Amino acid sequence: MGLDENAKKAVALHKRLKGKIIITGKISKLRRSEIQLIYTPGVAAVCEEIYHHAGKKYELTSKGNNVAIVTDGTRILGLGNIGPYAALPVMEGKAVLYREFGGISAFPLCLNVTKKEEIISTIKAIEPAFGAINLEDIESPKVLEISEALENSLSIPVFHDDRHGTSVVALAALLNSLKLVKKQLRLIKIIVAGAGSAGYGITKLLVAAGCKNVIVTDSDGAIYKGRIGNMNKYKGELAKITNPKREKGKLPDVMKNADVFIGVSGKKNLVNPRLIKEMSRDPIIFALTNPDPEIKPEIAKKGGAKIIATGSYLYPNKVNNALVFPHLMRVILDRRISKITADLLLATAKAIAGTISEKNLDYNNIIPDMYDKRIQKNIVQALSHLHLK
Amino acid sequence: MGLDENAKKAVALHKRLKGKIIITGKISKLRRSEIQLIYTPGVAAVCEEIYHHAGKKYELTSKGNNVAIVTDGTRILGLGNIGPYAALPVMEGKAVLYREFGGISAFPLCLNVTKKEEIISTIKAIEPAFGAINLEDIESPKVLEISEALENSLSIPVFHDDRHGTSVVALAALLNSLKLVKKQLRLIKIIVAGAGSAGYGITKLLVAAGCKNVIVTDSDGAIYKGRIGNMNKYKGELAKITNPKREKGKLPDVMKNADVFIGVSGKKNLVNPRLIKEMSRDPIIFALTNPDPEIKPEIAKKGGAKIIATGSYLYPNKVNNALVFPHLMRVILDRRISKITADLLLATAKAIAGTISEKNLDYNNIIPDMYDKRIQKNIVQALSHLHLK
Repeated sequence: MGLDENAKKAVALHKRLKGKIIITGKISKLRRSEIQLIYTPGVAAVCEEIYHHAGKKYELTSKGNNVAIVTDGTRILGLGNIGPYAALPVMEGKAVLYREFGGISAFPLCLNVTKKEEIISTIKAIEPAFGAINLEDIESPKVLEISEALENSLSIPVFHDDRHGTSVVALAALLNSLKLVKKQLRLIKIIVAGAGSAGYGITKLLVAAGCKNVIVTDSDGAIYKGRIGNMNKYKGELAKITNPKREKGKLPDVMKNADVFIGVSGKKNLVNPRLIKEMSRDPIIFALTNPDPEIKPEIAKKGGAKIIATGSYLYPNKVNNALVFPHLMRVILDRRISKITADLLLATAKAIAGTISEKNLDYNNIIPDMYDKRIQKNIVQALSHLHLK
Repeated sequence: MGLDENAKKAVALHKRLKGKIIITGKISKLRRSEIQLIYTPGVAAVCEEIYHHAGKKYELTSKGNNVAIVTDGTRILGLGNIGPYAALPVMEGKAVLYREFGGISAFPLCLNVTKKEEIISTIKAIEPAFGAINLEDIESPKVLEISEALENSLSIPVFHDDRHGTSVVALAALLNSLKLVKKQLRLIKIIVAGAGSAGYGITKLLVAAGCKNVIVTDSDGAIYKGRIGNMNKYKGELAKITNPKREKGKLPDVMKNADVFIGVSGKKNLVNPRLIKEMSRDPIIFALTNPDPEIKPEIAKKGGAKIIATGSYLYPNKVNNALVFPHLMRVILDRRISKITADLLLATAKAIAGTISEKNLDYNNIIPDMYDKRIQKNIVQALSHLHLK
């Protein structure tokens, strides 16, 4: 099924459903006697119980299983700033996956404000009903500032899927890819195209995982220590921990001899076969921008790519956050983890990668299927060994 | 079942449920092919459709069926200011009833802010994902100011249940009560105890319905034109349209010769049998404060009350908003009504009252049962004749 046909089917399905989510009570066929307990007058006793014992809010309400998917619509998929209304279908889709794969109640909180301070104060205001916040598709670097501010002021965790989720699934896929081409993370050169949330998250996690030579590029080319122009606090942070040889120039210049290309640039057709030809042996191409990747898999293949992955469900090797967020959030909520750390993300990436046994690894099978029930079990187990905050 | 036993059962049920609501996808057993439509890549086409045709947000998302139940926890039931966490069980209970009786997805948005401006800006910020706002259990007069400000700035309706819902159910019950005692609304004297949201709403609706002699009391006694002290903009508004004889004094003073007492004071045991004895023939007592009414029905009976109603499910004549909000909100959403007017409320009250035929009316049956499926049908029909904004 081509992209166009898929698009038509998608619009038709949404029209038929008239929204993808519903909020419903846990008691089916509510009886009169139950209304006296869940509503007046019985509920008053439950309120008083929480009022006198604050911790009981997790025992007696849905808070601990509720996640707010918060966006301002400024950077939806690869579509850009399309606003909070047009963002709704993505956030609802995400809510559906949270329920389906993580058993989580997620609500699409699309905001009518785009200023950093307003987004922060809105999220602080709505905290009580939620067990965690999922920041989604908010433009960078604003979203990184928001996330930092919230981490310091909320008592619930802030999961930034574009950063955290993407970094985990990309690293998981990379760990398995490297097994196939027999290369070691600490010895290879990786290009990360895109210095937004995803690029920031992936790069930080690659470095935490032991990679010594990552080069991040943005629209001005390679980021390096001392670069002037088109920088911000977070790019500055990346400049310090990447590009040890201070390579300069545009993407084609630094792609030479790279082992891995990870595209989270939001730009379709950023990469062409000529660039792939100049990479090191057995090039690994992760073209992760949605809905249109940096290079189409069939074209990358012609260019000599050995392993190709995208974020889309239309191709093999689906390096999509959906493999991460429902499962990881399940653990975050259940264990009341308050902070998303590199240790947590690393362990999760390894657990996901390890879900495919070495004998089942294949160029078209570097990442488990999202229906694989072992993913969540493996993550739970991997994190059970970690001391988490 | 007594109040204490009911309270214990309520806490136990909440502990077992661990929250009363879940958010779930409309497609059960999501298939892989459907993920390509509701999530990447298909969903991008749906986003673009809304981006280019703003009106389609109602066709392609859940917005039109989502209601935010917004509270700051400052005036929960008759319990007072117990904060947003202790408020959660009430709001979740309300969400359950919205689904059960109205087919509506309602989310309990308990806020961590209590300043008027902060509540207003938070609600404005979260507007996009919702088809309507339900303000709930926020202290008065702040909530009336919030509601006024929002009506002028949101493009979705603001339903203030404590005001609108309570006024409708109280008027519906009163209309039927008057049929039984054979009195006319325009000729009787009504005491409304409580000048908060409910008292304000009920009084405005009684006047709109044709009642010429309503007296509102607060902790300082009767409100009258020219009263000094403990007034605010909304009490001033009430003073202008009520108490034509400018009766003064405490509640016991003005209760004399009243035909009807409507208690929405938040004060238990405000009324005693002695006060009822001084009322006009066939006294009607609506002691609507939850969970503890202004007077217990058995005591009011001893005092000579002819018709007694409470807001609780433990007694006959349950004058509870739950008879109104799910049904009225269904119509509000379906017809995209943008403003809650007196006409709308009056027609709804008459439709609810009319659900009981005159031959079935009885001192213990003045208001239909909430499971009565004709309520919604009657409201829909009554409002179909109205030209609504």
